Amino acid sequence: MYRTNNCGELRLNDINKEVTLSGWIQKVRKLGGMTFVDLRDRYGITQLVFNEETNAELSEEAQKLGREFVIKIKGTVAERSNKNPELPTGDIEIAVRNLEILSKSEVPPFTIENETDGGEEIRLKYRYLDLRRPVVQKGLILRHKTAQEIRNFLSNKGFLEIETPFLIKSTPEGARDFVVPSRMSEGKFYALPQSPQVFKQLLMIGGYDKYFQITKCFRDEDFRADRQPEFTQIDCEMSFVEREDILSVFEEMTKHLFKTVKNIDFKEAFPRIKYDDAIENYGSDKPDIRFEMKIHNISEIVKNKGFKIFNDAEYIGAICAEGLANYSRKQLDKLVDFVKRPQIGAKGLVYVKYNEDGTFKSSVDKFYSQDDLKTWADKLSAKPGDLLLVMSGNKKETLTQLGELRLEMGERSGLRDKNKFAPLWIIDFPLFEKDEETGQLHAMHHPFTSPKTEDTELLETNPDAIKADAYDLVINGNEIGGGSVRIHTVEMQEKMFKHLGFTKEEAEEQFGFLMNAFKYGAPPHGGIAFGFDRWVALFNGSDSIRDVMAFPKNNAGRDLMIDAPSEIDKLQLDDLHLKIVKK
Amino acid sequence: MYRTNNCGELRLNDINKEVTLSGWIQKVRKLGGMTFVDLRDRYGITQLVFNEETNAELSEEAQKLGREFVIKIKGTVAERSNKNPELPTGDIEIAVRNLEILSKSEVPPFTIENETDGGEEIRLKYRYLDLRRPVVQKGLILRHKTAQEIRNFLSNKGFLEIETPFLIKSTPEGARDFVVPSRMSEGKFYALPQSPQVFKQLLMIGGYDKYFQITKCFRDEDFRADRQPEFTQIDCEMSFVEREDILSVFEEMTKHLFKTVKNIDFKEAFPRIKYDDAIENYGSDKPDIRFEMKIHNISEIVKNKGFKIFNDAEYIGAICAEGLANYSRKQLDKLVDFVKRPQIGAKGLVYVKYNEDGTFKSSVDKFYSQDDLKTWADKLSAKPGDLLLVMSGNKKETLTQLGELRLEMGERSGLRDKNKFAPLWIIDFPLFEKDEETGQLHAMHHPFTSPKTEDTELLETNPDAIKADAYDLVINGNEIGGGSVRIHTVEMQEKMFKHLGFTKEEAEEQFGFLMNAFKYGAPPHGGIAFGFDRWVALFNGSDSIRDVMAFPKNNAGRDLMIDAPSEIDKLQLDDLHLKIVKK
Repeated sequence: MYRTNNCGELRLNDINKEVTLSGWIQKVRKLGGMTFVDLRDRYGITQLVFNEETNAELSEEAQKLGREFVIKIKGTVAERSNKNPELPTGDIEIAVRNLEILSKSEVPPFTIENETDGGEEIRLKYRYLDLRRPVVQKGLILRHKTAQEIRNFLSNKGFLEIETPFLIKSTPEGARDFVVPSRMSEGKFYALPQSPQVFKQLLMIGGYDKYFQITKCFRDEDFRADRQPEFTQIDCEMSFVEREDILSVFEEMTKHLFKTVKNIDFKEAFPRIKYDDAIENYGSDKPDIRFEMKIHNISEIVKNKGFKIFNDAEYIGAICAEGLANYSRKQLDKLVDFVKRPQIGAKGLVYVKYNEDGTFKSSVDKFYSQDDLKTWADKLSAKPGDLLLVMSGNKKETLTQLGELRLEMGERSGLRDKNKFAPLWIIDFPLFEKDEETGQLHAMHHPFTSPKTEDTELLETNPDAIKADAYDLVINGNEIGGGSVRIHTVEMQEKMFKHLGFTKEEAEEQFGFLMNAFKYGAPPHGGIAFGFDRWVALFNGSDSIRDVMAFPKNNAGRDLMIDAPSEIDKLQLDDLHLKIVKK
Repeated sequence: MYRTNNCGELRLNDINKEVTLSGWIQKVRKLGGMTFVDLRDRYGITQLVFNEETNAELSEEAQKLGREFVIKIKGTVAERSNKNPELPTGDIEIAVRNLEILSKSEVPPFTIENETDGGEEIRLKYRYLDLRRPVVQKGLILRHKTAQEIRNFLSNKGFLEIETPFLIKSTPEGARDFVVPSRMSEGKFYALPQSPQVFKQLLMIGGYDKYFQITKCFRDEDFRADRQPEFTQIDCEMSFVEREDILSVFEEMTKHLFKTVKNIDFKEAFPRIKYDDAIENYGSDKPDIRFEMKIHNISEIVKNKGFKIFNDAEYIGAICAEGLANYSRKQLDKLVDFVKRPQIGAKGLVYVKYNEDGTFKSSVDKFYSQDDLKTWADKLSAKPGDLLLVMSGNKKETLTQLGELRLEMGERSGLRDKNKFAPLWIIDFPLFEKDEETGQLHAMHHPFTSPKTEDTELLETNPDAIKADAYDLVINGNEIGGGSVRIHTVEMQEKMFKHLGFTKEEAEEQFGFLMNAFKYGAPPHGGIAFGFDRWVALFNGSDSIRDVMAFPKNNAGRDLMIDAPSEIDKLQLDDLHLKIVKK
């Protein structure tokens, strides 16, 4: 037997117990004739003590133990004279009688502690060592607990978890598909799913009524910060439902997770913000509403005062950063640099300081009087001591830029507390996005999204104006989930494909089996999918989803630990009927 | 709102309730002025009734409803005059006031009933219709429930479900790997996991202690009956454990599943049978012990009586089929044909009828006296009325053939009842298998399996004789799970690779990261993996795992519904740096 107890559970009332423990060596210290060893496992740390006087030989062995050795000891639980209130086991120690080295360790390439000296590359290469750090274990334990709570909640609601296939069909629009060559069918490929979307709709047509799945999805994208080629989705679908039924179940699930995983009680209904309002007020369809600082349209009151840039602008908007009127010239310059970064791409920024004495100082004093600036301040309900930040230009772009600036100012003002959570629903998305260059309509969510019933007529007359029966769950500026009521008749789906510029053949080729399924009695249905990695990262206070994945890839899609992707055998290539074409 | 109730829940005490139901049309019958409609969803069937007298127009509409139309109705729950005791809802019907067709259906290509007229090919092509059959739904619901019970059981035991990656590294021995070409790394490939084996070992090295995962695995095999290229595994691993700790947890889990899913109580410990004994007594390492009919070695008592075949044979074995002495010549001939089939490959079969009158009739009467045959019968504890079946030859092959014959006789005698379950552990597997031709040793389980501690010394002297610390869970002749205590030191793992004929370079190339991980303090660990599909099929009484998968592929690895694998774009191939080589 390797242990009677783990390293996190012994307490004062275990004193005098004979115990066996196993674990990793965290630290060895010698103090006079005593040698203290911290023994670690995923449950905690227990102090072992070796006394030179009572057993010199054992004590000497203990001093030779290196960091990360795995040992097994037998001994007696004793009260510590020097208690450590920071450790749950800090009142006791084990007087060791017997020591066995189970396996040795070379000196690890970085320290196995929450604050480690290892950079990300080396930690990914030695991920099995990184995984030992308590902070990483905490994230994966949280992930497990969250998944369990989701499964139990949905199962209790009558949802069935049903596995959909991983080896599916590539679609011509599937530039982002990972493909898998078939050995048995020469020149043919499977594709890995970007999501189980079509399969969950087929399950609804198959009568399964309430489906969910926590499953891996795959997307072969050019890597961006914090994207992974494989990621985990909580995929859900229901039949015989309207939007309200769906939002109701998943708002309840979200509250359940907040309660059981984070011990946070959301009593009120989540705010619902229409897409158009979110863009107008927050410059984003995933607004962070932990703080106010709304965007105000001040186009009407700033024009015709001789300032050409504003006069020519389609839109002028402003935000009010409370209490920041004392920003220095240098700080303001840095803000200008911030909005001019290519990621944001603004041309500039106008500031108005509402000084404590009631006067105004702005970068456009040449054009606007103190009274003018007072009007702006009033429009934004600003107080003395506040700082107004104004941007102008094309409406859509300017709102996005103001949205980014708003987040930055929220961050600087400490308004984006990781321990505070502000969930909301964004509803009434546009059904289509228009390609600015070609004028071609694209589905904003995906081609199976239903238009809102009251907008259906607009399909023939004014498709741009149609709202979709689609919704996103947003928490703290992150899109955590998104879904829609789906189209469930062949007629509507065909219309939709036509608007999206599919020929009949293309639609048949790509979605023939779904269209075919619609012919045999499809129930009204709808659903939602959540980004599980992002949700757990948010719960865990992590900036990156890599922190809550056991074996993440780096930003270039490589697994540094196992060194993948890698070359394969010529023989295997032959079996797959493939040849590599070097460029 | 689409429904106040589902189609399986209304009862007598709901009478006079106003309800809204939605579902599929199972059947429409006209009886005089009344039209009866069976409305179906996954919860059951409810009878709707339309009365020509009270509403002629609605009644006419109802008569036009076709099979599998999706409708929504409003009406009042009424007591049926003609109750149907076979339906849980058979005491009531709905007097319909309002009918809405939600979507129409063409005539389905087969009947949506438990006993369908559709062959397998067409049911796979229209799998979304096949999925509507209650018997299929029952299987998937059972699958969901089993998965939930596994997750809850293991979570309660402190196991963490941790997701391991799908895009991993191909290994040169990985002829069975599916590979995924990388777009970003020219000429390189990921591989899909055949199992998370190495990752779960790395998790143990990472300190996770108790891990499980219900996850998809992939194997690119030439298709055999009832194999799927993607399948689901319950993968488990524990640290600081010996074999006994592992068997104890998973025997408890197995009993928990039998209890909660099948309502069967196993009070006794599962039998444990040594590999050698299983082969000797059942001719199989996955014996079906629902019935006895053990194989008996009768080599000693049948030789030297002038029957050359037996005299020359390494081994002669027999089974006793109770009560089958009345088998006709024709039936016996068919048994001979059975053992001569290429799948079994025996040369022949000797029978001995132990007649009710105490005499014997055998196919070797020329060589053996009644007394001789009585000795055989006594050896097998046969009674008058029993049939002895005897086979001879090379010991290993003959035992396997007798094992197959035993299963066949069990089947014929009705001893393999689908509702009876006989779980057991097979233990003490050989560590190695020897390639008969080359003499090269192969790992019987996999190269990470630890030899039994007491056998370790034999590694240098007599590796053939070493037993592994490996075990299988067998139920009703199916290998449901298998696992082992693992090697956890570099030294032992290197020795193992050497015996398996790996060069140092090959071992480094394929398992370098695991060997490297062993250098940093690996705990003793071990685990098990279960075939989830097979387990659910067994619980469901299904012969094929396809019956309990939502979207299975056919025996040639094709998804007939979505038509995969399929061709991909030339552009996409270019992106992947690949060219197809036609043969």
